Amino acid sequence: MASPPGLNFFKEGYFTETGTMNPEPSVSLKVDEVLYQGESDFQRILFFRSEKFGRVLCLDNAIQCTEFDEFAYQEMISFLPLNSHENPREVLIIGGGDGGVAREVAKHPKVDKIIQCEIDGKVVELSKEFLPHMACGFASEKIDLRIGDGINFVKNTECRFDVIITDSSDPIGPAEVLYQDDYYASLNKILKPGGIVCCQGESLWFDREFIREVLGRCSKIFAKVDYSSIYIPTYPGGQIGFIMASNSEETDFRRPITVFSDDESERMRLRYYSSEIHSASFVLPRFARKYVDESLGRK
Amino acid sequence: MASPPGLNFFKEGYFTETGTMNPEPSVSLKVDEVLYQGESDFQRILFFRSEKFGRVLCLDNAIQCTEFDEFAYQEMISFLPLNSHENPREVLIIGGGDGGVAREVAKHPKVDKIIQCEIDGKVVELSKEFLPHMACGFASEKIDLRIGDGINFVKNTECRFDVIITDSSDPIGPAEVLYQDDYYASLNKILKPGGIVCCQGESLWFDREFIREVLGRCSKIFAKVDYSSIYIPTYPGGQIGFIMASNSEETDFRRPITVFSDDESERMRLRYYSSEIHSASFVLPRFARKYVDESLGRK
Repeated sequence: MASPPGLNFFKEGYFTETGTMNPEPSVSLKVDEVLYQGESDFQRILFFRSEKFGRVLCLDNAIQCTEFDEFAYQEMISFLPLNSHENPREVLIIGGGDGGVAREVAKHPKVDKIIQCEIDGKVVELSKEFLPHMACGFASEKIDLRIGDGINFVKNTECRFDVIITDSSDPIGPAEVLYQDDYYASLNKILKPGGIVCCQGESLWFDREFIREVLGRCSKIFAKVDYSSIYIPTYPGGQIGFIMASNSEETDFRRPITVFSDDESERMRLRYYSSEIHSASFVLPRFARKYVDESLGRK
Repeated sequence: MASPPGLNFFKEGYFTETGTMNPEPSVSLKVDEVLYQGESDFQRILFFRSEKFGRVLCLDNAIQCTEFDEFAYQEMISFLPLNSHENPREVLIIGGGDGGVAREVAKHPKVDKIIQCEIDGKVVELSKEFLPHMACGFASEKIDLRIGDGINFVKNTECRFDVIITDSSDPIGPAEVLYQDDYYASLNKILKPGGIVCCQGESLWFDREFIREVLGRCSKIFAKVDYSSIYIPTYPGGQIGFIMASNSEETDFRRPITVFSDDESERMRLRYYSSEIHSASFVLPRFARKYVDESLGRK
C-alpha cells in the first residue's frame, strides 16, 4: 500500500516528511513546483523544487537529498572509507540511485573501477532528468551500473572490493534487507584484505536501539567497527551517522591515509570533507560515545 | 504586535516553529498538553508537553529548549569557555532565563560566583514551575540573579569577569541588542585579563551572513575569536554554533585546560560535553571553515 502523500499533509503548499523512522520532529519544506510524482515497482517517487533547498528527491515520503545539503552526505559516505584505505582501487556502491555517491567516488584519484548496484532503475532515470548535478556521477568511465537487487549481487558476485558503500534509505521498505545479519556477512566475504565497508547509520539522537543492534551485529563479523557522524539539516534532527567496518585490525578509520591538499580539495569541489573533519566526525557527544562503545564491547 | 501562535499553525495538535531566523525547514512537534500560554512585557511565552521531547519552552514561537536535548546546548555553552580558561572564578550570564546554563556553570569546581542578568522575570518564574530540572540552577549558592536589561548591566557594572556567557534567543525581538557592536565592546571592557566570552552563534548552514558580520565585528574588538558547533535536533537544521572570543592572544579555545575525568563527568552528569568533543566542536565542514576563516582574516 502506498504511504499517504507528503504533499499538503501538514499545510497546503508544503511537503511534510512522514516516511522516516523519525517522523517527529516533523519537517516541512515549502514546495515551489512539483517536478514529478509517481510510483515505481518499489516505492513512491517525488521530485519537487524548493526556493530554499533547490531540487528535492523524496522516496516513500522521506527526503533523500536536497541540492542545498546533499554534498555533506555524499562526500562523507565516500571519502571516509576511501581515505581510510591505503589503495581503494575497486569500489562497490549498493543503492545510491540518485548518482551523488558515484559522483564523489569517481573523483578519487586512486579509484579505478566502481560497480554500482541500484534496485530501482526508475530512480536512476528520473535523477538524470531532475538532479543532473548528482546523476552526472553515472557518466564516469569508472562506473559499471547495474540495475538489480543489491542482496543478490553481494551474495553471488565473484568480484572482490577494497571499499563497499551502502547508500540506502531507512530500514523500512525496500532497504530493510540492507541492515540484516546475512547482508553484512556477505559484504565481509566479498571484501579484499584490508577492505572497508561504510553504511548509512541513522540518527544518534533517535535511533539508539537500532544503532546498538547493528554495531553489535557488525562487531561479531568484522575485525574493526566504528561510528561516524555528520551535520545535514534536511535529515531528521539535522544529523546522520555512518557505520564503518573493516576486516583488518590495522585499519584506523580516524586517521585518513590519503590527505587531500587544499588545491586538490578545491579541484575536487569539496564542500564538507577535509581530513580534519574526517577525524572529528568520529568524536561523538558523551551519551552517544557511551552507547556506541558499549555496543562495540569497549570498556 | 504578538507573533501568530505556533499552536495548530501547520496542523491541528502540533506546535510549528515560526519565530526563528530560519522558519524553513519548518519543524513541528506534537503537543500532548499545553502547560502555559501567555505574554510577558517582552515576549510570548508557551510551555507544552511533548511525548517525544518532554517539556518544551517556546518564546515568540521559537523553541528555546526541550527536556530531550537541552543538555547539549547548556553543557557546551558553559564548559567550552569555562574549560578554556585557567581559573574561571567569576562568571556573568546574560539571558538564560530557563536556568539551564546556571545549572551547568554552577557545577564547575573552579567557579565561585555567578552573576546572571535576565530581562524577563516571568520566564524565570514559569521555568521554576514547568522546567524544574533546568531552573534548579537558580538554587545554587553561587548565583546572584538579577532581573533586568543585560545591555544596561554590562555598560554600567563595576564588576569584572573571567567568563561571560550570552545565552540569548535569536537576534530578532528582545535579544537583538545582544548582537550589536557596542554590546561586544562593553563585554570586552568588563572582562578580566585572560577573559573569555561565549555567545549563541546561530546556524552555520542558514546564517552565513550573520555569522560573518558578528565574527568580523568581534575580531576588531578581541585578541582571539573562533567558532564552535554542536548537534541539537530541535534547533533549525539540527545545529547551533557558539562565538568564542578572548582578550588574550594566549587563549587556545581548542585545547581545554581543565580536563574532567570520567568519574567527574559522571558525577557532574555530563551527557554531551567531554574534552574530546570540546576540541572537535571547532572542526567545521569545509564550506563553513572557509567563510569563518575569511571573516576572521585568516589566510
